[in-house]
Amino acid sequence: MKKLHGIKALAFDAYGTVFNVHSVVELAEQMYPGKGKEISQLWRTKQLEYMFLRTLMGRYIPHNQNTEAALIYVMKYLNLKAGEKERKAFMDAYEVLSPFDDAKKTIPRIIGVKKSILSVGTPSLLSKLVTTAGIASYFDELFSVDAVKVYKPHPRTYQLAIDKFNLARNEIGFVTSNYFDVAGAKAFGFQAIWINRNNAIPDELGLFADIELNSMSQIPEILS
Amino acid sequence: MKKLHGIKALAFDAYGTVFNVHSVVELAEQMYPGKGKEISQLWRTKQLEYMFLRTLMGRYIPHNQNTEAALIYVMKYLNLKAGEKERKAFMDAYEVLSPFDDAKKTIPRIIGVKKSILSVGTPSLLSKLVTTAGIASYFDELFSVDAVKVYKPHPRTYQLAIDKFNLARNEIGFVTSNYFDVAGAKAFGFQAIWINRNNAIPDELGLFADIELNSMSQIPEILS
Repeated sequence: MKKLHGIKALAFDAYGTVFNVHSVVELAEQMYPGKGKEISQLWRTKQLEYMFLRTLMGRYIPHNQNTEAALIYVMKYLNLKAGEKERKAFMDAYEVLSPFDDAKKTIPRIIGVKKSILSVGTPSLLSKLVTTAGIASYFDELFSVDAVKVYKPHPRTYQLAIDKFNLARNEIGFVTSNYFDVAGAKAFGFQAIWINRNNAIPDELGLFADIELNSMSQIPEILS
Repeated sequence: MKKLHGIKALAFDAYGTVFNVHSVVELAEQMYPGKGKEISQLWRTKQLEYMFLRTLMGRYIPHNQNTEAALIYVMKYLNLKAGEKERKAFMDAYEVLSPFDDAKKTIPRIIGVKKSILSVGTPSLLSKLVTTAGIASYFDELFSVDAVKVYKPHPRTYQLAIDKFNLARNEIGFVTSNYFDVAGAKAFGFQAIWINRNNAIPDELGLFADIELNSMSQIPEILS
């Protein structure tokens, strides 16, 4: 297996990489039978679109507010009734997303490098996610884009890890399942590890992961 | 009917507003029967996503290259065979998109204000589009984001009209069917006219059009 060289710290994306954003499908399915998957997918799509657009327009708002705005759009778009109670149920669920099994099992096994989360979530959201998942103690840092008021893949977000770890860009391995985040990390100069659990195809952005894995379980091996 | 006041120039978005990006459905349907609409819609979605992402990453490429990259992704994603010949057919079709009927009929009828296109297309693409559609003579200016190497809704793109017309931001009426462009124009300070031909719902970005029309035919009336 191919190995990566010179990595002194890892930064993990949170949403979609360590935590399953589609953990809310079951809740959505209970509340709106037959619509669970569609709600979850469209919610994610709109959430990302709004992150990109707000950053481009210089109109950053914290991630939970952006996520709720996307939810409101989805409910209107799908013509579903959603009052305060339903919205709160979704937003509460989003605060305690499940970690992927491979993430939960592998992160404790990675030793010899600094470990961090580098995410669009606010500090309080990230803290709650890793605590609820029982993995808080394995991370040296939780980097939130809220410190710089732009979303990924803006380069200022990736710079957060450099500022703290004081390493060269290519000494940081960035771990993500989101291809736009692979591209952003590579454009910035990190080494990128694409966790491609669902056999997706790369986006045509002229930027490529240094290594592609279908599970995090192989990370200790590629760093050794 | 509500009217807009103080407008001295109009800037029209091109793709999706004056020109129908889904003019390629028929060609796509001929080449890949049963898949025409899906190809056209996914192509547009990916084209926009790549514009946003490339701008965020500081990796601008000209619109035709970005559009071709999106097409390549779509063909791979849908598992369709597309060689040089098929790609060229699509890209050629994209250069001669049909104008919407209401646009073609109304633009000549708008008098008393400067008229311009403000678009993500390169200068040569824009010139070819308006010439092919027979509406070139009605525009005072064709503004291309290629001059500033970022895509909409980045504020530098809207600034192009200000720099040339030397007007206050709210003296420019921005005409677009794309809601992200309504939002971008409003964030910048233009008056925004949303041409909502398909009864879409507004995106939840906290920014709203000054007026919503289901056809361009009412523009002369709201300016009078």
